Amino acid sequence: MKLVKVLGSITSTIKDSTLEGTKLLLVQAVDVDLKERDDFFVAVDTIGLGEGEIALIVTGSTAKRTDITKHKNVDAAIVAKVERIDLENSVIES
Amino acid sequence: MKLVKVLGSITSTIKDSTLEGTKLLLVQAVDVDLKERDDFFVAVDTIGLGEGEIALIVTGSTAKRTDITKHKNVDAAIVAKVERIDLENSVIES
Amino acid sequence: MKLVKVLGSITSTIKDSTLEGTKLLLVQAVDVDLKERDDFFVAVDTIGLGEGEIALIVTGSTAKRTDITKHKNVDAAIVAKVERIDLENSVIES
Amino acid sequence: MKLVKVLGSITSTIKDSTLEGTKLLLVQAVDVDLKERDDFFVAVDTIGLGEGEIALIVTGSTAKRTDITKHKNVDAAIVAKVERIDLENSVIES
Amino acid sequence: MKLVKVLGSITSTIKDSTLEGTKLLLVQAVDVDLKERDDFFVAVDTIGLGEGEIALIVTGSTAKRTDITKHKNVDAAIVAKVERIDLENSVIES
Repeated sequence: MKLVKVLGSITSTIKDSTLEGTKLLLVQAVDVDLKERDDFFVAVDTIGLGEGEIALIVTGSTAKRTDITKHKNVDAAIVAKVERIDLENSVIES
Repeated sequence: MKLVKVLGSITSTIKDSTLEGTKLLLVQAVDVDLKERDDFFVAVDTIGLGEGEIALIVTGSTAKRTDITKHKNVDAAIVAKVERIDLENSVIES
Repeated sequence: MKLVKVLGSITSTIKDSTLEGTKLLLVQAVDVDLKERDDFFVAVDTIGLGEGEIALIVTGSTAKRTDITKHKNVDAAIVAKVERIDLENSVIES
Repeated sequence: MKLVKVLGSITSTIKDSTLEGTKLLLVQAVDVDLKERDDFFVAVDTIGLGEGEIALIVTGSTAKRTDITKHKNVDAAIVAKVERIDLENSVIES
Repeated sequence: MKLVKVLGSITSTIKDSTLEGTKLLLVQAVDVDLKERDDFFVAVDTIGLGEGEIALIVTGSTAKRTDITKHKNVDAAIVAKVERIDLENSVIES
């Protein structure tokens, strides 16, 4: 999984029919210290997140396995909200 | 999914037989602010797009799941036209 | 597989239901000489590792094949602890 | 798919038995303007190409789907010769 | 497939049970001229290679398809020894 931050949402009216009703979020990869990396994804939100929240995304065929994304033609999905990262000498809360 | 801009189209007469009749577009990855990134893909157009339009592509095995790409030997497909991106403090319309 | 070092653990209460009970570790890719690379993953721990240990992760659909990750919506899993690397002229023990 | 240029061919006598009889080409990714990128692949030729030609490759599980690569343990295959790229203000013929 | 050079071997006693009996090699990606790239993999050896040899690896789900890796939770496997590369104006023997 990749650690990401939610930046915003995508509006699309012309799209593959399986994408109807999906909430597409624009996310940016972040480092351990939550610093933004130069890497972006559009992922289906399966758990209800908002801008600025830290999350985990799965990519590839796994993204089609959640209850929300079953039978949808997607290759990235948010599967967890990250509340806390415990490192050897520090704790990061988001 | 990846955010991309349509650059143009590919003509190929010598090709895998499953690619007959597919419209192959050359696309370039873009940033949140639609600035071009140094990353290119050739993707099957499943929704009818033209040069300069912003879109989402899926890559990998998902690209073979749309009604247009079923049974075709492709690994990238355009699945949505992006009309609008809502960020925390701005809206980008394309 | 990729050579990684375990940095810490992720806490998430809001998540895909298949992730319940999984131990999610934050790992960082390392070089042959165990020097840290600028690449991070969150992977399910299937063998019981702690911070600072060197491990191998699998990514993609393979990550769902272990006894621990079966039917879980994950795309990265730790599958081995690395104890020793034998190179042509040196041995690295971790 | 990725846009590539054929650089040459690979000779291998010791190999996985499913690779017997495959023609393995060394290819280099190219930009829209056919400028070489610092990215190389070895791909099975399924359409009969020679050095210097521009082609499309598929990677991942799709590479095993062509008539030529069925049941072969490969993860990259050339599926189309690119004859022409139409951009907004120019045409590139190869 | 990716062109790689074998650097050494990995010893792991604590691991996923499907990895028992596999020979795990550390490999480094190389360029057309066999110059080392800054990219490393750990791959299952399916053909019997030693340090310094040039090989092809497959990654992703294909890595689980060889006779040696069937039912093993791996995502990279060496499938060919590279003996010779024929380029337009040169031959590289390894």
